[in-house]
Amino acid sequence: MFKKILIANRGEIALRVIRTCKEMGISTVAVYSTADKDSLHVRFADEAVCIGPAQSKDSYLNIPNIISAAEITNADAIHPGYGFLSENAEFSKVCGEYGIKFIGAAPEMISKMGDKATAKATMKEAGVPVIPGSEGLLESIEEGLKLSNEMGYPVILKATAGGGGKGMRIVKDDNGFKKAWDDARQEASASFGNAGLYLEKFVEEPRHVEVQIVGDKTGRACHLSERDCSIQRRHQKLVEETPCPVMTDELREKMGEAAIKGAEAVGYEGAGTIEFLLDKHNNFYFMEMNTRIQVEHPITEEVTDFDLIKEQIKVAAGQTISGQNYKPHLYAMECRINAEDPANGFRPSPGKITNLHLPGGHGVRVDSHVYAGYVIPPFYDSMIAKLIVSGQSREEVIVRMKRALEEFVIEGVKTTIPFHIKLMDDKQFQSGMFTTKFLEDFDFSSLKK
Amino acid sequence: MFKKILIANRGEIALRVIRTCKEMGISTVAVYSTADKDSLHVRFADEAVCIGPAQSKDSYLNIPNIISAAEITNADAIHPGYGFLSENAEFSKVCGEYGIKFIGAAPEMISKMGDKATAKATMKEAGVPVIPGSEGLLESIEEGLKLSNEMGYPVILKATAGGGGKGMRIVKDDNGFKKAWDDARQEASASFGNAGLYLEKFVEEPRHVEVQIVGDKTGRACHLSERDCSIQRRHQKLVEETPCPVMTDELREKMGEAAIKGAEAVGYEGAGTIEFLLDKHNNFYFMEMNTRIQVEHPITEEVTDFDLIKEQIKVAAGQTISGQNYKPHLYAMECRINAEDPANGFRPSPGKITNLHLPGGHGVRVDSHVYAGYVIPPFYDSMIAKLIVSGQSREEVIVRMKRALEEFVIEGVKTTIPFHIKLMDDKQFQSGMFTTKFLEDFDFSSLKK
Repeated sequence: MFKKILIANRGEIALRVIRTCKEMGISTVAVYSTADKDSLHVRFADEAVCIGPAQSKDSYLNIPNIISAAEITNADAIHPGYGFLSENAEFSKVCGEYGIKFIGAAPEMISKMGDKATAKATMKEAGVPVIPGSEGLLESIEEGLKLSNEMGYPVILKATAGGGGKGMRIVKDDNGFKKAWDDARQEASASFGNAGLYLEKFVEEPRHVEVQIVGDKTGRACHLSERDCSIQRRHQKLVEETPCPVMTDELREKMGEAAIKGAEAVGYEGAGTIEFLLDKHNNFYFMEMNTRIQVEHPITEEVTDFDLIKEQIKVAAGQTISGQNYKPHLYAMECRINAEDPANGFRPSPGKITNLHLPGGHGVRVDSHVYAGYVIPPFYDSMIAKLIVSGQSREEVIVRMKRALEEFVIEGVKTTIPFHIKLMDDKQFQSGMFTTKFLEDFDFSSLKK
Repeated sequence: MFKKILIANRGEIALRVIRTCKEMGISTVAVYSTADKDSLHVRFADEAVCIGPAQSKDSYLNIPNIISAAEITNADAIHPGYGFLSENAEFSKVCGEYGIKFIGAAPEMISKMGDKATAKATMKEAGVPVIPGSEGLLESIEEGLKLSNEMGYPVILKATAGGGGKGMRIVKDDNGFKKAWDDARQEASASFGNAGLYLEKFVEEPRHVEVQIVGDKTGRACHLSERDCSIQRRHQKLVEETPCPVMTDELREKMGEAAIKGAEAVGYEGAGTIEFLLDKHNNFYFMEMNTRIQVEHPITEEVTDFDLIKEQIKVAAGQTISGQNYKPHLYAMECRINAEDPANGFRPSPGKITNLHLPGGHGVRVDSHVYAGYVIPPFYDSMIAKLIVSGQSREEVIVRMKRALEEFVIEGVKTTIPFHIKLMDDKQFQSGMFTTKFLEDFDFSSLKK
């Protein structure tokens, strides 16, 4: 087992990894930018190294500085959390070159799964259902138009290097194709330095359902059930839950089997997530594979009792998994509490938290790095807490979540709490019958709290 | 179902009950003494009524004032929490007279189980194992001496109206009998206004193991497994865990059966606890029955997924239980965080909490009514938080508890946190092999944090 792990991240996930390391008796090294010197991850780690100024590119994305921090402190492994360098093939490679175990995917795996077109081709070959679409990148508008007419509209154009909704356009007919093509290429080029686009049949009324998998060095993988992440605003997840409200045992078995097939086909080692689109006829299609821990991993922990960070560390240290799949024995839901003003287009609201009171009690878990007096820097992600609630039924989870949201006091900055309270009261949300488009028609204007 | 419940209590348990009521859609009425006007239970309830000055006897024990508060607010039920009036037969009776449902035991039940000698006789008759001892109260020293010689020393003298270790004396031989008799009678008389004593065989190397039961109006009861509460200081529980470290499936079945037999024999309705002493040969003896929710109930909730307050309310409203017994599917432990100085004889440390940071993350639950800036009044119980941790093994729970204790920041007052941290590091505690006497030899002097 590792003696010392450096956590190449900040915020709640840095604290999350430190917690598990403490429980495993592994020493921890925090890294931090000058903007994060008063963060809890710095305080709770055994050692802490400043790796640069506030801007991410100079600190949390600065590979040489992070490797130096690991060398100086004699860390024998690095946990990258999510975001930042967690799916950076170069970083994974450099860690290896320095004899530091990267607790994540191998460089080739990251490259293969990070390029969406390659990922899709790989999964298709492994027998995982994929959305009909172009074989790889589109060469021209003409090819796109031809293919769209063969599959039937609507279709969607996607940037091969994309993510977070950037470089993506839905096209409803031939007339809209050219503008969508130009816009998507331009956005993709600006955002990722890569204008390459591919085309897909657009799945209507889809739910975002992802399967958590864990693979080990023997090439074997198992799944820990699904998470429904359909509650999204502009492709950003806001609420996740498990089990998926429309899941059946039969569908879970099929989906789990497909996820394992995909993971085993690429010899995936570690914790990973296969994201699917689920349509209203219970057809599901591979979207992408995330070769890292997900923000929403705690809901899986609540319903399976596994510590997923511990599983990551154990597998990275060469231990093997049991190979058993797990079905949820409870219901769990996560609300992302962001320092954003939901009544004003989710505008970021950095600043000082003047008063803080966390909710507690039965079935309530909070993962957060903030405290009363903490100043939220404007440089990073605006998520300041994850409120995770579990219970014996989806109904119980919803009323408990509302109760916990109402107890949660965060003063000094705007947060997404009023949005979540309204969501818990929403009849359609309560029914469980919604798609990824649900929030498009949501009335945010009344959130004046 | 009830429309509005008045909670005749304060502190964390008042908040605990409010939380469940909110989740059940039931309105809540808080009552408070003038010393508690800034308490969270006052803030989180739908309505709040001041019932008198700081001293408990004038407020939280003031039956007319509490009944008035219920009448004024139209509450149709009262939840008494633990302590205060929760096991007061008169209060239960008066509630009934005013047509307010008392969420607890019937007056006769409280009287029967509250008088230890009667409780023991009742259980013995029902076939529950009891400790050999006097049939009811001792008439004289001479009777006590005779009986002690028949059973063999050591024996223990106990106040029939006692609790919390008061009016209790262990006697090792004839010579010590008279002093113990006099001391115990005097203490019992002063504490409870009742000098009556009874005698028992003193069980050596005992563990305190209690079984959680729930009974309904049909007279049926089920059990939700046991809790080990052997970690006590002067008969005050400090740490509780489930499952009991020395429990076996066979023993649990026997003990659970005995508990159900006892509960059904008296037609017990509601949540209750049967406390047993378990000796090193796995013999167990009835100690007492608590006809209320216990402080340590959350550990049972963590390992069975039940909300015990909800179960209490449902049964009080006339709903019936499934009748199924429950085995723990996890491990859970609770540390009572008291505002006391463990390095100085656990001297109470009331005052202002100047800084507060609660632990969080996987498997961590906090039940607490305090916040940063809260002033702990000197009038009541010194417990300010319950830290409840769950995990897949006892080992995992202990390291997680230690991690959470180290994250817990409470500034401005002394707390029992340093004691708990030291306990988690203790080899004997880690082994699980300890008795109720464990803390008698514990080195508290090094707790200078």
